[in-house]
Amino acid sequence: MAAFAIHGDIIWAERLGKLEYIENGYIVVDGSVIASVSSEKPQGIKVIDESHHLVIPGLSDLHLHAPQYPFMGMYMDEELLTWLEKHTFPEEAKYSDAAYAERAYTQFADDLKRSATVNVSVFGTIHTDATLMLMDKLEEAGIAGYAGKVSMDRNSPPSLTEETDRAVEEVRRFIEEGASHDLMKPIITPRFIPSCSDALLEALGRIAADRGLPVQSHLDENPSEVEWVKELCPWAGSYAEAYDHFSLLGQRSIMAHCVWMQESEIDLLSRRGSYVAHSPSSNLNLSSGIAPIRRCIDKDVNIGLATDVAGGSTLSIMRVVQDAVTSSKMRWRYISKDEKPLSFPEAFYLATKGGGSFFGRTGSFEPGYDADIAVLSEKRCSTVISSGLSPAERLELYAYRSPDEDVVAKFVKGKRII
Amino acid sequence: MAAFAIHGDIIWAERLGKLEYIENGYIVVDGSVIASVSSEKPQGIKVIDESHHLVIPGLSDLHLHAPQYPFMGMYMDEELLTWLEKHTFPEEAKYSDAAYAERAYTQFADDLKRSATVNVSVFGTIHTDATLMLMDKLEEAGIAGYAGKVSMDRNSPPSLTEETDRAVEEVRRFIEEGASHDLMKPIITPRFIPSCSDALLEALGRIAADRGLPVQSHLDENPSEVEWVKELCPWAGSYAEAYDHFSLLGQRSIMAHCVWMQESEIDLLSRRGSYVAHSPSSNLNLSSGIAPIRRCIDKDVNIGLATDVAGGSTLSIMRVVQDAVTSSKMRWRYISKDEKPLSFPEAFYLATKGGGSFFGRTGSFEPGYDADIAVLSEKRCSTVISSGLSPAERLELYAYRSPDEDVVAKFVKGKRII
Repeated sequence: MAAFAIHGDIIWAERLGKLEYIENGYIVVDGSVIASVSSEKPQGIKVIDESHHLVIPGLSDLHLHAPQYPFMGMYMDEELLTWLEKHTFPEEAKYSDAAYAERAYTQFADDLKRSATVNVSVFGTIHTDATLMLMDKLEEAGIAGYAGKVSMDRNSPPSLTEETDRAVEEVRRFIEEGASHDLMKPIITPRFIPSCSDALLEALGRIAADRGLPVQSHLDENPSEVEWVKELCPWAGSYAEAYDHFSLLGQRSIMAHCVWMQESEIDLLSRRGSYVAHSPSSNLNLSSGIAPIRRCIDKDVNIGLATDVAGGSTLSIMRVVQDAVTSSKMRWRYISKDEKPLSFPEAFYLATKGGGSFFGRTGSFEPGYDADIAVLSEKRCSTVISSGLSPAERLELYAYRSPDEDVVAKFVKGKRII
Repeated sequence: MAAFAIHGDIIWAERLGKLEYIENGYIVVDGSVIASVSSEKPQGIKVIDESHHLVIPGLSDLHLHAPQYPFMGMYMDEELLTWLEKHTFPEEAKYSDAAYAERAYTQFADDLKRSATVNVSVFGTIHTDATLMLMDKLEEAGIAGYAGKVSMDRNSPPSLTEETDRAVEEVRRFIEEGASHDLMKPIITPRFIPSCSDALLEALGRIAADRGLPVQSHLDENPSEVEWVKELCPWAGSYAEAYDHFSLLGQRSIMAHCVWMQESEIDLLSRRGSYVAHSPSSNLNLSSGIAPIRRCIDKDVNIGLATDVAGGSTLSIMRVVQDAVTSSKMRWRYISKDEKPLSFPEAFYLATKGGGSFFGRTGSFEPGYDADIAVLSEKRCSTVISSGLSPAERLELYAYRSPDEDVVAKFVKGKRII
């Protein structure tokens, strides 16, 4: 691809807590990566005029469930375990039907395409073929990242319970057939400890290690779930230790939620370099609680943001930025005055470079980073004082006033998607 | 006006916790009020076809600050008292300029017009003329309810500090000149105890009693504010008692926030029949806390929902419904397991009939209620399972997926506004 530039009000975060911006600047894209960002007009290359628009790095969503998208925003008066049984499992069972999966995943991919999200780590269902189709749809939509065929062999309804050996074979098949994609790659996906036998967890840990594959699962979401894991793994010192025992907690692991982590679990995730997929919208909706993100930051745990559709009721990581900020304020107010609330620039960093680092070099405008770029429409952010606002003020305004993300252009690894 | 009917999927709440609905039903409007709701097509009158659309009662917003709308969604990393000083007061000072006020209030009224809100109780600034203009703009936009010229004579920046006698005179002038409106009426508006001297509060209480006017103010929003009021009114047993002492706490009083109420204050509000303007979005943003709404419900306190623009970062009461539900879950989780979270139907009741009762008979589709009606567009709620959903499921989906309220038609006291 020939080099080109995007002209607009460019804003990004290179480190936690600080926004960088160049008003009326130019991002030069060379092939699939960022070459430079500056206020000088580059010569001899095509310039895409997005002047007066905010230009941000593509967002990363570290955890969401594609098959739950159809009922996103409903049944929010339940807690996790009841909600799984009454609404989630029946919906997920439908994905044995290829025609249903095609309809549902087409809509999911279309809607994600229109958002500011570029990278995802997404759960499918136990159905290998439907999950491969999900990868196709996301790939077509220009979404990058990982998708996982879910593994479940216990404590699940019959329609979603795999026989253990078969479950392992299907994961192997999923890895083989899923490897052919360009933007979307396979990820090992034990649903969570309650729905995976020790034998299955052990096999999955071995596959991840042998193939050098990443892992995604759930950790410490809800007190009843945490209690249940204690009963299921009496030998483990903690929920996180149980994953670790099966070699499922490493540098390439995403653990969703992490609301009820003990201090020793935070330390373990920090040592392992694992990622917390912080899902505040979902944690509020399912009455789970508020994750100790400040403590994770203080201990250098890797953190990204996540919608957790459909515990979360939005596809928008910008809305999750809002919820990360507001819920941290409640944690500070009611749980610990030592845990300073997240600021907006901090939450925006987690939504971009923070979570993006799981996928590689994405989520920032530093040279050599993937040219993952979203151009925002501020049409719903109109205010009589708008002419005096800095890009940093406009970005916060956008996050609060355009929670479902009006995007006018989007580039993934240098390729224009919308 | 001739009678007419609206045909659609009609949904409303007559009591806390239960949604009534008629799919494919007819609301008959006679003049300015609801005549009937039924599944039978009425004969001999015009029928407006909104079939397949959700038809709900117009929403009520019990507390918001019109002059703060320009910076809504910014500066959310501050707490109440700093936020007032650094951002709110400087913006409010601008409303001494009629041209600025006209521009800002025109946009505020336009945006409110497009929302599902029909009734508001809104704060202006200390500026009488600007606040009268605000009433004009809202009236023109078809918004009903109350607007208040704010009273402040202490602990405020010079540009927003009135001399006490002059403050009282201006309130009298505001009442005279504001009385000529049809939909919008004046309301007595001491900002809050810290910014009003005893003499001013006493005078305002007397005017409210003499003229039979309603009152709006702030109560127990933030711990530092509550401490300050203790210092300012050492003679009062509580913040609520201080208002009560000046005859400002009655059946026609709205108290915004009420996050930090003591049990005796809940009892006092219950005895007086005063309204809590529950503002969860704002209370999250300004780190204020989570109001004890379940305890208020249990003690029969009148409650409505409020955006509290611009502590709140949305004009949408539907978004506030979401925040009322999610924040009550955090209160249950972390503060008191005796306080059951609000369900979606409960929060929707507070947004309609609950808060509506302050304004009269509005917010329900019972015969004789004002024909305040919003017709919703579900275009951002599309899901592959939509054909099987009940109106109750669709309404919850709408509240979560369309937080800034797509409205296709709106009627205020029987008159079509959009």
